[in-house]
This record gives sequence, structure tokens and C-alpha cells, in this order.
Amino acid sequence: MVDDNHYMTLALQQAELAAAMGEVPVGALLVLADGRQFAAHNEPITRHDPAAHAEMRAIQAACKACENYRLSGATLFVTLEPCTMCAGAIVHARISRVVYGTSDPKTGAVDSLYRILSDTRLNHQPEVTSGIMADACSTLLKDFFRQRRKQR
Amino acid sequence: MVDDNHYMTLALQQAELAAAMGEVPVGALLVLADGRQFAAHNEPITRHDPAAHAEMRAIQAACKACENYRLSGATLFVTLEPCTMCAGAIVHARISRVVYGTSDPKTGAVDSLYRILSDTRLNHQPEVTSGIMADACSTLLKDFFRQRRKQR
Repeated sequence: MVDDNHYMTLALQQAELAAAMGEVPVGALLVLADGRQFAAHNEPITRHDPAAHAEMRAIQAACKACENYRLSGATLFVTLEPCTMCAGAIVHARISRVVYGTSDPKTGAVDSLYRILSDTRLNHQPEVTSGIMADACSTLLKDFFRQRRKQR
Repeated sequence: MVDDNHYMTLALQQAELAAAMGEVPVGALLVLADGRQFAAHNEPITRHDPAAHAEMRAIQAACKACENYRLSGATLFVTLEPCTMCAGAIVHARISRVVYGTSDPKTGAVDSLYRILSDTRLNHQPEVTSGIMADACSTLLKDFFRQRRKQR
């Protein structure tokens, strides 16, 4: 739990980087079984890539470094509940544990709209922990959208 | 319908390229509103990337070329029913129409396990056509797995 908060703080720093770029502030940190860490943030607009969510970027960077399309033993920390796309990639990559901050009632696919990570019809179910530093993760998103509405 | 078969034939050629590489034979062709085409095939093992499904590769290539993370007006042809990851990316990219060949009862997220592309809680629902050249798409997959079992 102490560790979860530590890693989520690093994911939050990534989310702040996204906000500074005008991207929806979501950040992720992937910690491999051997301790290596891969940080990433949301940046679909900047990268012209609808798949450039924080989770996807972290998973793809780690897989490239490991030269393996699977990451058994890895834990993914992400500030916002993953969507269907990211939940699917988490299953494909065989990530062992997912820790997310705040829920996403609009597109969340772990607990909110779908429960993809606990679907036993799929061939992998990671352990899931939610609500870690949820207030900080949520506040960053709310502030971002409030600011954006003001600017319009 | 004639056009659907034409484009699915091109997607099938991509699937054959995947099979030749030892990858699960799934191919995709993305046709933009302006007629430009982006072909891709499944290659997660070769690329060390769990997200390197045919649909994702085609979407990412097209977005890069268009310098836009959305592809309104585009039609995606894919030989196999998309999974949750690819269905999510299709929604994020605002693809207008999805045409797939054969169903995927194990991981399909358009009609089989989930119905993500018709979920009105999400902010986009593409038109969906299924079963185009289904036998050819399915046979390619069955032959691939039969061959692989023999080799083990």
C-alpha cells in the first residue's frame, strides 16, 4: 500500500505532464518483475494516435525494451480506470496486477461500463486494486476540464 | 457488397502475409473517406507489441499519414471480429464503418463476448457489417492452427 502510493505519485507526475501539453491528464507507470520502470502519459492529439493512452504507451515501451509481447509479473499503475482498448491490451500483455486511481464512469472497462479484467471467458485475469490516491487523480482531471471549459 | 468483397480480398492477402511470418493470420484494410488505403496485418510476436493487431496497425498508420487522431468517414475491413482493444481504438478513432469477415467466439467484442461498437454509453457507434467472405477468413485461421498443432 505504501508502495502503491509511491508508484501512483509517479503516475500522477506523468498525468501532470499530459495536462501541460493540453492532453487529458492521465499518467501510467509500469513496474516489471525485475524492477524496471516505464512511465508514460496520455498524448493522442500530439502523436496523432488514438491509441496513445498512457497505459498503451507504457506497455509498448516495456515490451520493446524486453523484446517480448508479454509482461508476466508486471504491475501497471494508472491514474484513471482503463478503457476497453487499454483493458484489452493489459490482457494481451498478461500483466499480473493493475492499480488504478479514480473511476471513469463514462468509459471505464474494469469496473464501470465493463469488467474486462475479471472476465473469465478471456484467457487472463490480472489482480486489480482501485481507489489509490483517487482524490488527487480525480482532481487533476476535474481541474483540467474546468480550465478547458473556461477557455472556450 | 461488391466493394466489400473487393476490400476484404485485400485484407485477406494481409492475413496471408501474417501466416507466412508465423503470426495468427488476421489482416485489415482501412479505406479513408478520400479513398486512401492503409493495409496491415497481425504481428505482435515479431514486433514485441501486444497491441500490434491488424486493425491497430492500420489505424495508427492512417492517423499518422493524416496527422489526425480521428478518422471520420473511414471504413475498416478486417478478416476477424475485433477484440476489446481494437473495438476501443475504433471508437476512439471515430471510424464510420467496420466490416469484418468471421466471428471470434473467444475474444470478439463486436457481437460475440461484448457489443462495444453498438454501446450507446460510449460516444461513437460505427455501422457494422459482418460475415463478408467469412468462410475464406475462417479457413485461413483454421488451417494455421491445424498446421501449428501438427508442428508441436
